[in-house]
Amino acid sequence: MQKQKFIAVIGSGQANAGEIKLAEAVGKEIARRGAVLICGGLGGVMEAACRGSESAGGITIGILPGDKREAANPHIQIPIVTGLGYARNVIVVKSAQAVIAVGGSYGTLSEIGHALQNNIPVVGLKTWSLAREGRPDSGIISVDDPVDAVDVAINLIEDHQP
Amino acid sequence: MQKQKFIAVIGSGQANAGEIKLAEAVGKEIARRGAVLICGGLGGVMEAACRGSESAGGITIGILPGDKREAANPHIQIPIVTGLGYARNVIVVKSAQAVIAVGGSYGTLSEIGHALQNNIPVVGLKTWSLAREGRPDSGIISVDDPVDAVDVAINLIEDHQP
Amino acid sequence: MQKQKFIAVIGSGQANAGEIKLAEAVGKEIARRGAVLICGGLGGVMEAACRGSESAGGITIGILPGDKREAANPHIQIPIVTGLGYARNVIVVKSAQAVIAVGGSYGTLSEIGHALQNNIPVVGLKTWSLAREGRPDSGIISVDDPVDAVDVAINLIEDHQP
Amino acid sequence: MQKQKFIAVIGSGQANAGEIKLAEAVGKEIARRGAVLICGGLGGVMEAACRGSESAGGITIGILPGDKREAANPHIQIPIVTGLGYARNVIVVKSAQAVIAVGGSYGTLSEIGHALQNNIPVVGLKTWSLAREGRPDSGIISVDDPVDAVDVAINLIEDHQP
Repeated sequence: MQKQKFIAVIGSGQANAGEIKLAEAVGKEIARRGAVLICGGLGGVMEAACRGSESAGGITIGILPGDKREAANPHIQIPIVTGLGYARNVIVVKSAQAVIAVGGSYGTLSEIGHALQNNIPVVGLKTWSLAREGRPDSGIISVDDPVDAVDVAINLIEDHQP
Repeated sequence: MQKQKFIAVIGSGQANAGEIKLAEAVGKEIARRGAVLICGGLGGVMEAACRGSESAGGITIGILPGDKREAANPHIQIPIVTGLGYARNVIVVKSAQAVIAVGGSYGTLSEIGHALQNNIPVVGLKTWSLAREGRPDSGIISVDDPVDAVDVAINLIEDHQP
Repeated sequence: MQKQKFIAVIGSGQANAGEIKLAEAVGKEIARRGAVLICGGLGGVMEAACRGSESAGGITIGILPGDKREAANPHIQIPIVTGLGYARNVIVVKSAQAVIAVGGSYGTLSEIGHALQNNIPVVGLKTWSLAREGRPDSGIISVDDPVDAVDVAINLIEDHQP
Repeated sequence: MQKQKFIAVIGSGQANAGEIKLAEAVGKEIARRGAVLICGGLGGVMEAACRGSESAGGITIGILPGDKREAANPHIQIPIVTGLGYARNVIVVKSAQAVIAVGGSYGTLSEIGHALQNNIPVVGLKTWSLAREGRPDSGIISVDDPVDAVDVAINLIEDHQP
């Protein structure tokens, strides 16, 4: 079963309607492609992605910051209770083989940093763009469509397979 | 699916034949009772418990200390990659509603401490016994039989349900 | 300045009068011997040890579980803010070259486990005693006097020096 | 002694000559202003900042990712041994009241995200610039001069004091 692909969806717990719609479509496509969805387990983008996955029969894992499994959104099937606060962000991305960022706040930015530091590819939908000393950084692969985002993520995982 | 019970099995990565046999029986019974098995994801007691669970069609989660998902034993279905070293021990027990200790080294002792500190019940099979200033401590519920261990754990979880 | 020795004092945040007295004496002796005191930064045994260290001009470091530096006891000079909850226990012991346990609850037990797992010596004053499958475990070096506890800890650190 | 200000200096372990020069000047000014320097404890920007602080008689704390205190750069006075890998980044910023980023890689980006998420001000010298959906983000206060960077950081800390 470890043959399954693991994809993280990251984004704000307070998302706008456009982000919610994108995240739900991303989650649905992840499930449709047979991959497991990992996220931070809470609301907003995380909940929308899980709802999408669930609607297509997918598996959802939530890496929770607090001490209570009850804090997981209702579409989380596997709650992981860390009690680490936002230090859990690093686990969300390390447990995935590719990361899809939808919108995003500063917490999402920390996750993007951790992912790229660990050579885990990041696909972005309406998210951060980065520049270093004025030069654009190509770390985040920006796409416009949620199905494309999952497609790029899956291809990148397959390219990394030995 | 969050209705499922989550039980952690903890014990040494270098286990003797008796511990291996106990851990495998514990894992099998956890699966037979429909609960999800959480462990540290590596060898010894962890691997034996996962093998037992797998043989009965159960779900296995490994909270890995390192950075590589490939370090998971072959019976882990959901590898969680923490990169936290042995600080991951606290996640193993917090993600469970009851803990079963089989044998065990000092790492297992740290997990027992974290579990009891968090009011998560600990059932012990041939594991540590504790005393404070000479008075025996009743934190660990000691049993002799692996099926009994799972039965006690399941009952304790049900007693905690609202 | 890294030539200084680092000693952790661990014990409950709710300590009784005897433990408070022991912890204060331990802290004072650590400072008198020129070592740096590390602890979890909160009350009870931790605060008493820091008060003792301060009274003898020592340096005190508190590895705090929460997000607020203001939670440190008033004798902490260097507050380290982890936000990790009790997963910070592992940092308290890893940052020390020897650990002195005074009394102690289950959290202290987790710290003893982490220390012994990392081959960091543990000296105990009225603390836990351990047995594995009925055989006493010699991991904790039990002493009765706080000055002796520090003396043993210092000697163990010096024995580990190359 | 908790009246002292704590400032984190973040940046790459592999820094270029310009970054090294900036970091050393930042460290020197932090010490000159009586503040404590916190960093990740390793080489590059971290080591240069510590060398600067040491030259002006300052205090330096290194939050180390690994298990060995010997990994600290030679100018670290207080090594904190976390064993958490890059999850230690969150502790570096949380333990500070202001953060100064010098240059920086993806690890630095994760620290900037964690700091801004925790409302800890970030001053930048030749570091990342951020935009969200094409709109520049004002989270990082960009300056050109290392003495100015420390001055801004100190003023921001004083503004936060009650």
